[in-house]
Amino acid sequence: MIGHTNRKPTREGVIQAAAKVAAILPPTPLLPVTIGDTQCWVKAEVLQPVGAFKIRGAWHRLSALSDDEKPRGVVAVSSGNHAQGVAWAARRLGIAATIVMPHDAPQVKLEATRALGAEVVLYERPGEDRDEVAARLIEARGGTLVHAFGDPWVIEGQGSAGIEITAQLGRQPSRILACCGGGGLTAGLALACPESAIVPVEPEGWDMVGQALAAGEIVPASPDAPKTICDALQPIATKPINLAVLLGRSEPGVTVTDDEVRAAQRFAFAKLRLVVEPGGAAALAAALAGKVPLDEHTVIMLTGGNTDAASYAATLAAGD
Amino acid sequence: MIGHTNRKPTREGVIQAAAKVAAILPPTPLLPVTIGDTQCWVKAEVLQPVGAFKIRGAWHRLSALSDDEKPRGVVAVSSGNHAQGVAWAARRLGIAATIVMPHDAPQVKLEATRALGAEVVLYERPGEDRDEVAARLIEARGGTLVHAFGDPWVIEGQGSAGIEITAQLGRQPSRILACCGGGGLTAGLALACPESAIVPVEPEGWDMVGQALAAGEIVPASPDAPKTICDALQPIATKPINLAVLLGRSEPGVTVTDDEVRAAQRFAFAKLRLVVEPGGAAALAAALAGKVPLDEHTVIMLTGGNTDAASYAATLAAGD
Repeated sequence: MIGHTNRKPTREGVIQAAAKVAAILPPTPLLPVTIGDTQCWVKAEVLQPVGAFKIRGAWHRLSALSDDEKPRGVVAVSSGNHAQGVAWAARRLGIAATIVMPHDAPQVKLEATRALGAEVVLYERPGEDRDEVAARLIEARGGTLVHAFGDPWVIEGQGSAGIEITAQLGRQPSRILACCGGGGLTAGLALACPESAIVPVEPEGWDMVGQALAAGEIVPASPDAPKTICDALQPIATKPINLAVLLGRSEPGVTVTDDEVRAAQRFAFAKLRLVVEPGGAAALAAALAGKVPLDEHTVIMLTGGNTDAASYAATLAAGD
Repeated sequence: MIGHTNRKPTREGVIQAAAKVAAILPPTPLLPVTIGDTQCWVKAEVLQPVGAFKIRGAWHRLSALSDDEKPRGVVAVSSGNHAQGVAWAARRLGIAATIVMPHDAPQVKLEATRALGAEVVLYERPGEDRDEVAARLIEARGGTLVHAFGDPWVIEGQGSAGIEITAQLGRQPSRILACCGGGGLTAGLALACPESAIVPVEPEGWDMVGQALAAGEIVPASPDAPKTICDALQPIATKPINLAVLLGRSEPGVTVTDDEVRAAQRFAFAKLRLVVEPGGAAALAAALAGKVPLDEHTVIMLTGGNTDAASYAATLAAGD
């Protein structure tokens, strides 16, 4: 049941989403951070109840389901953060949630999703197309697909972070650096903050938004794409609904290496006392590596903080 | 120069301190946390610019210095968090700061204090009395002592956290669990929130406030006191000014073990995505260990997040 394919995400929708989110979740803090000689800002979405911004889009989407749709449940595909956002919103609304997750998703994300009451269906990455797994599930059981990024409500919901930031900063940011997987948050921020430059930051080899922006069309991930520690930022491709918002609006994409991401995780540990997962540290990594100009009205998204203790400990130790 | 020994900290002073703090620092978030079946709250003071609540008392004290006092500078004694608070406030006010620190203070705390422009003077713990080292420095150089907890402005400044919490919660907490060293924060919270039960939480063997409350008088730390990982919570004794506020007002003290503290640090990592140092996790440790009753209006202070990467990584690894 994908009855919304022709609906376009709008700034009005983002503003509505922000009001809905504000009714149930306090704003996450916008914290000052000094990088080089510049004091700019981080938006600490790791402090959301599920440890990631994904709760925003999931809440906006699920709370907009009709009374006919709610009893049939929802199906989502996610490496773990969207999974938790959907499971959290579903539990709060009394809706059944089935989440398709890669078998190699971080254990903490699998456990947290199940702990929120969702049914988890595993698939093999990269052999299977996760969207096909979800489509088969919906064909067999019914239910509404809640896509992780290619959905107008999800885009609008993620954009609510931009409305919060604008209120906290007292103006729209000069520039927002966003960790970018499929482009849901990036598109939402572009709608929320029309005066801000928007910079998608992606892992090297997984810059499906950056490549699509450069090509002017969807570019699929290469089967030979390198491994990345950013488990949250490995889309097969962006979607037309995301690209339509971002084309002509977004700055060119920026990529970061695993080592740059780990350095950003260590910086967040030592200077911000925030636990940030690899994919959640990509934007900070770009800032620390000097890949994007910064000023006093620049905002860096810290999008997620769900990471296994063992890999986080190894990342800290690698910095000594 | 200790011209304020007869001044008593007051609730009015706490309210003034809260206004002064609010003028320069955004409130730290009050985040929901579920412990067992109870949803209560944590006050995330680890998100202060210096990673600890100590910035509050330091700002209230240093900004109250007279025009005669400011050019002569300040002297403080601290294992590291008060050090950074005083250094931060001193730099902002253009005041010279000398900080007496134990030679075994965490390296990150020594480095951060120096990075804020303060002069650091090391002493041997426990052979030397740090207050005597500070007194000798003041005799030789002049300057105003900014005691880490036995000072009316410092107590009032720390209490500003309780004013913030009351605004965020919409009422005074039923109970506040406070990590407790010498009793500056605990006394400040007692003044700030007269309707709240106040529970000082201290490391086993270093419960100098708990023992003083039980005895009705100051009890010095034993020379045979066990080691503790809570470097921030090892006072030689509480002070009369703290005990005067807390006697007849505080609940009995609660103690926590190193293992309980480490478990709390791991909980904060996994569930709150916050980096908390051992001493900053003591109150959470008491809550998780079931040592204090919790309800929906209970607030747990997370007081500091300055810890070495290596010891934090070891703490995470020990939980696997």
